Amino acid sequence: MIKVGVAGYGVIGQRLADGVALQADMELVGIADLAPTLSIRALKEKGMPYGLYLVEGADKAKFDALNIPVTGTFQDLIGKVDVMLDSSPGGVGAKNKELYAKAGVKAIFQGGEKNSVADVFFHGYANYENGLGADFLKLTSCNTTGLIRSVDCLDRKFGIDRVAITIIRRVADPGDYHRGLTNALQMEKAPSHQAVDLMTIMPHIEATGILVHTPVTHGHIITVVAHSKNGKITKAQALDAFKAHNRIRIVSIDEGFLGNASLFRYARDLGNTRGDMYEIALWEDSIVESGDNIMYAINIPQESVTIPETLDGVRACMKMQPDSKSATAETNKYLGLGKWK
Amino acid sequence: MIKVGVAGYGVIGQRLADGVALQADMELVGIADLAPTLSIRALKEKGMPYGLYLVEGADKAKFDALNIPVTGTFQDLIGKVDVMLDSSPGGVGAKNKELYAKAGVKAIFQGGEKNSVADVFFHGYANYENGLGADFLKLTSCNTTGLIRSVDCLDRKFGIDRVAITIIRRVADPGDYHRGLTNALQMEKAPSHQAVDLMTIMPHIEATGILVHTPVTHGHIITVVAHSKNGKITKAQALDAFKAHNRIRIVSIDEGFLGNASLFRYARDLGNTRGDMYEIALWEDSIVESGDNIMYAINIPQESVTIPETLDGVRACMKMQPDSKSATAETNKYLGLGKWK
Amino acid sequence: MIKVGVAGYGVIGQRLADGVALQADMELVGIADLAPTLSIRALKEKGMPYGLYLVEGADKAKFDALNIPVTGTFQDLIGKVDVMLDSSPGGVGAKNKELYAKAGVKAIFQGGEKNSVADVFFHGYANYENGLGADFLKLTSCNTTGLIRSVDCLDRKFGIDRVAITIIRRVADPGDYHRGLTNALQMEKAPSHQAVDLMTIMPHIEATGILVHTPVTHGHIITVVAHSKNGKITKAQALDAFKAHNRIRIVSIDEGFLGNASLFRYARDLGNTRGDMYEIALWEDSIVESGDNIMYAINIPQESVTIPETLDGVRACMKMQPDSKSATAETNKYLGLGKWK
Amino acid sequence: MIKVGVAGYGVIGQRLADGVALQADMELVGIADLAPTLSIRALKEKGMPYGLYLVEGADKAKFDALNIPVTGTFQDLIGKVDVMLDSSPGGVGAKNKELYAKAGVKAIFQGGEKNSVADVFFHGYANYENGLGADFLKLTSCNTTGLIRSVDCLDRKFGIDRVAITIIRRVADPGDYHRGLTNALQMEKAPSHQAVDLMTIMPHIEATGILVHTPVTHGHIITVVAHSKNGKITKAQALDAFKAHNRIRIVSIDEGFLGNASLFRYARDLGNTRGDMYEIALWEDSIVESGDNIMYAINIPQESVTIPETLDGVRACMKMQPDSKSATAETNKYLGLGKWK
Repeated sequence: MIKVGVAGYGVIGQRLADGVALQADMELVGIADLAPTLSIRALKEKGMPYGLYLVEGADKAKFDALNIPVTGTFQDLIGKVDVMLDSSPGGVGAKNKELYAKAGVKAIFQGGEKNSVADVFFHGYANYENGLGADFLKLTSCNTTGLIRSVDCLDRKFGIDRVAITIIRRVADPGDYHRGLTNALQMEKAPSHQAVDLMTIMPHIEATGILVHTPVTHGHIITVVAHSKNGKITKAQALDAFKAHNRIRIVSIDEGFLGNASLFRYARDLGNTRGDMYEIALWEDSIVESGDNIMYAINIPQESVTIPETLDGVRACMKMQPDSKSATAETNKYLGLGKWK
Repeated sequence: MIKVGVAGYGVIGQRLADGVALQADMELVGIADLAPTLSIRALKEKGMPYGLYLVEGADKAKFDALNIPVTGTFQDLIGKVDVMLDSSPGGVGAKNKELYAKAGVKAIFQGGEKNSVADVFFHGYANYENGLGADFLKLTSCNTTGLIRSVDCLDRKFGIDRVAITIIRRVADPGDYHRGLTNALQMEKAPSHQAVDLMTIMPHIEATGILVHTPVTHGHIITVVAHSKNGKITKAQALDAFKAHNRIRIVSIDEGFLGNASLFRYARDLGNTRGDMYEIALWEDSIVESGDNIMYAINIPQESVTIPETLDGVRACMKMQPDSKSATAETNKYLGLGKWK
Repeated sequence: MIKVGVAGYGVIGQRLADGVALQADMELVGIADLAPTLSIRALKEKGMPYGLYLVEGADKAKFDALNIPVTGTFQDLIGKVDVMLDSSPGGVGAKNKELYAKAGVKAIFQGGEKNSVADVFFHGYANYENGLGADFLKLTSCNTTGLIRSVDCLDRKFGIDRVAITIIRRVADPGDYHRGLTNALQMEKAPSHQAVDLMTIMPHIEATGILVHTPVTHGHIITVVAHSKNGKITKAQALDAFKAHNRIRIVSIDEGFLGNASLFRYARDLGNTRGDMYEIALWEDSIVESGDNIMYAINIPQESVTIPETLDGVRACMKMQPDSKSATAETNKYLGLGKWK
Repeated sequence: MIKVGVAGYGVIGQRLADGVALQADMELVGIADLAPTLSIRALKEKGMPYGLYLVEGADKAKFDALNIPVTGTFQDLIGKVDVMLDSSPGGVGAKNKELYAKAGVKAIFQGGEKNSVADVFFHGYANYENGLGADFLKLTSCNTTGLIRSVDCLDRKFGIDRVAITIIRRVADPGDYHRGLTNALQMEKAPSHQAVDLMTIMPHIEATGILVHTPVTHGHIITVVAHSKNGKITKAQALDAFKAHNRIRIVSIDEGFLGNASLFRYARDLGNTRGDMYEIALWEDSIVESGDNIMYAINIPQESVTIPETLDGVRACMKMQPDSKSATAETNKYLGLGKWK
């Protein structure tokens, strides 16, 4: 049993903790945080299924006042685990790394940290082998994680050498008040970091792209123009490849999946915890051919999409499975991915 | 065991079905619908925990093509139940009523139907006794249901004779595309129907109000100016009364409940199915006094708020409990309402 | 001719400058700002109808690089005027006040400054006389300005002693990216500052209220419950009073004024500069009676609503007219207010 | 003087009327509509600068009740003009065409009509010559009009053979309540009609694309991946070409043009009527190269972008100028296009 801790119990941290708890070959030791946020209050109302450890600077009196039981300190947690999943606010992970290194504990950082925090910039499908036995991994961000799933899927089958993406980005998560956008589309300077990151993970592909923020909360949509180096890919061929992928769900407008909010509604109606979905969705009726290019649109559920690949990362750095195929199969099995087919 | 069916498996119908299934003294026989919507597809992906019955006009071939098992016809369902919960689209319920009457089955209609469809316009707290043994009840709409919880709570304790409300209405449910509002606040003619409906349920109160639609999906907010007929109510007194209510959750901005979306996030993090909440929330830091008026703001989770009162309705029309106190206590017990205290 | 300058050429400053320029008995000397913002670039593209003066800390080289002509320094501007209209970012006005005092120049501050910056907290209708000859005035904020127009209108005619308001606040101005709200209603602690401010200006009224931010940009909507101290006010009586006011425009849903965005569209179609409207709008079909209360809804065009009252302030502090009636009549004449009747 | 009438005084019709009125070689005879909408009420409040003609089915009594003067019938208007600009609701234009044909009057239809309504599907830059002397033209829709400006600009200079677009579409106009989208991105089936339409106008280019609706009102954003048939186009080369175009405005994030709403704010601050802009904007910092592809993002001000090309259409069908170059130069001169340079 690989022992795992989670630092930072926010949007991502909560989902990492729940994801670890579902893996039969991992044990969630506990989570660490700083203040009695709504997420911690919800944990308490649920009866503290996980132990809570306090990071430096936390005021224990505040937790006591709310009758929230505290199991120990961040150092205590680090001392009990094999690997830490760090989803602290951006920049804090780099500081935590020193504690992990000192304790001889491995760690996997989320997309908010700089790449330099880690030895390997990691994706469970595209470069699993690079992460084998590594001490510090950094996960690709939510958009990049989902994007690479689809591009890697085509690349393995057909050979892709060029990609141009347009990211229609959700600007905030449900429940965010500290950021938002009202009746505006906001540009970022091109190329988008996701295109650059894709090239880091898949260096044989030339990628560029433009990102536009939009005032919605339930999932990014990315359009991808992928160029085959081996001649035309037909829509039918692309669709077959995508359908075989256990972290890609094929949907269509005719079925009722009209947009990103339909996917969130569907996941809620499935009874998924928090209405989350680990899969990206790919609209069958968005796929179009143009010369040797294939173009399509995917939906990225930003809150949960990186969880499977982070669990793959645990498998890689702890050498639990020797290759991407066997590792992603284990993760998928415990998360129920592909079972809808 | 009271046998219950649900007609119309949409936003409300799904939640009614799940709510009935949680009542130890009721049995959910099945649900009826017309087409393989996303909600029905989700039911199938969950393994058909409930039997599916098809209403007249449904094309069974469409269900067969998707391998969705069908248990029988709407008539079959009606023949097996004591009471139908009808959450069909507005107007359909009135038609269905004829079938229910013919079969000698009781029914409870949702807010979308005209009041004339039912013998009693019903609220589990404010007029439970009127519904005892009745054949046809109609529930108050989501806003009215939540509003009356709070006004009835004050009224029982202090005596209220006048209410002025402002409804800041969410314009669509998450996942709706057929309606919406973009960068606009939309007026309705005053007085709002919710104020009028409140007077129907609580005829000793004079109520008026204004409703404004806003471009959000996660809950209405209502401000209430309630006038006491027995002199000043202090903030502390009002708060005590609200705190004792099992379908009212007291929250505050300082805790992190910044608005309606915080409540949805919290319910998701609690692990509630679909991120739903049965309680209305009342902001402690919104309560202000002015003369003999007390003013406060409540949040109405529109998708789920009427479920408890509908279950109270089953208890009333089936005479399962003799009064509001005992009936609401049963409903609350099975839904876990008040357990957070 | 009263000589006027404007400090801070942002959303409000631009409109103050244009408003002054329309007054036949005032001269706009120029405007002062810090950086070549989009507003300054637009001024340049329009051919610099006003002189531009640079405040301390401005980098003239940046203006030169864009061929934007600079007339002088902030001190130069102060030296040429009788009164400064200060719409600098919050807090800067208090610093600027020292410069004004030293130069013996009067000033009117906008709602973002603390009340203590000024001798008189001012509204053109409700307390004009307090501002006569004063050195430093502070205008009420946009919501308070519009709200008081309507309450003062009723108060003069019928006598009002109690007010409860609900402010449905637009969260950002069109074109704002630094703040916003996405799919959320955000609460503020009650009572809202606008209710408190109303009591400062109209001390014979007890006011309270709740403010909720909404994700829109084209105008706040306020519902008002006003209590008459002299018995019932009928809807017809209230409407007659409102109709006689030159800064209140009566509209209705039946005419097509469905909400705040209809008013913006209408002002654009009128050819008003920037699609602005100086009037508040009051929905005829929102007015309802309840006992001795009258309830109604108004729309506040936040970008432009304070301009008339600020111009009234110039008239007061410079003693251009002896009373509210004659002063507001002059302002209205030059701004074309009431001409639609 | 070419005599012009406008049928349908809505969002587009109002702007067509104003645009015609600015052309020194055209005379606006009047406008025709059905009901006293807000647009007609605004026209009245402005003092009826244009004659109003009533289409069949209009109830003159309604106009009389509002003291809105009526000049005549739709037939009267048709009898006085050389060309009608038809911006009636979709489908009505096809019916009106019969009246135009009977009267021997030319007409230009907007994008809402089917292509079959016209002899020529028209764009002022890309195929002006096809429209010379034609009786019935149909303008490209707003997105297609702006898109073609930019693609034609590159094509003339460098030779383009393939285009893939992503349209991030504003879902409603400011002031629309009959349609909207709340917290959702909505997919359309690919390929988007704009890509197909581009191929109709520019048959030597293969185009495809995906369209996503977003909940904003102030302008579409399109990303374009354009492939050169003659080898690499550098960013500098593309930028030079775009800068020379009088209907393309080059902007950047660093200047403060953060997104579509910045452009609307800027146009308002320029004092443009209704805050309109005829130019598309192209973000300098969005341009990226990838092999022989150049990628960039443009903003489409949907309410006003088709006005210049419609006026070009008048010039074409009335043979006022022999070619695109001279015709667009005249239109640009009277609309002030390019004067900002």
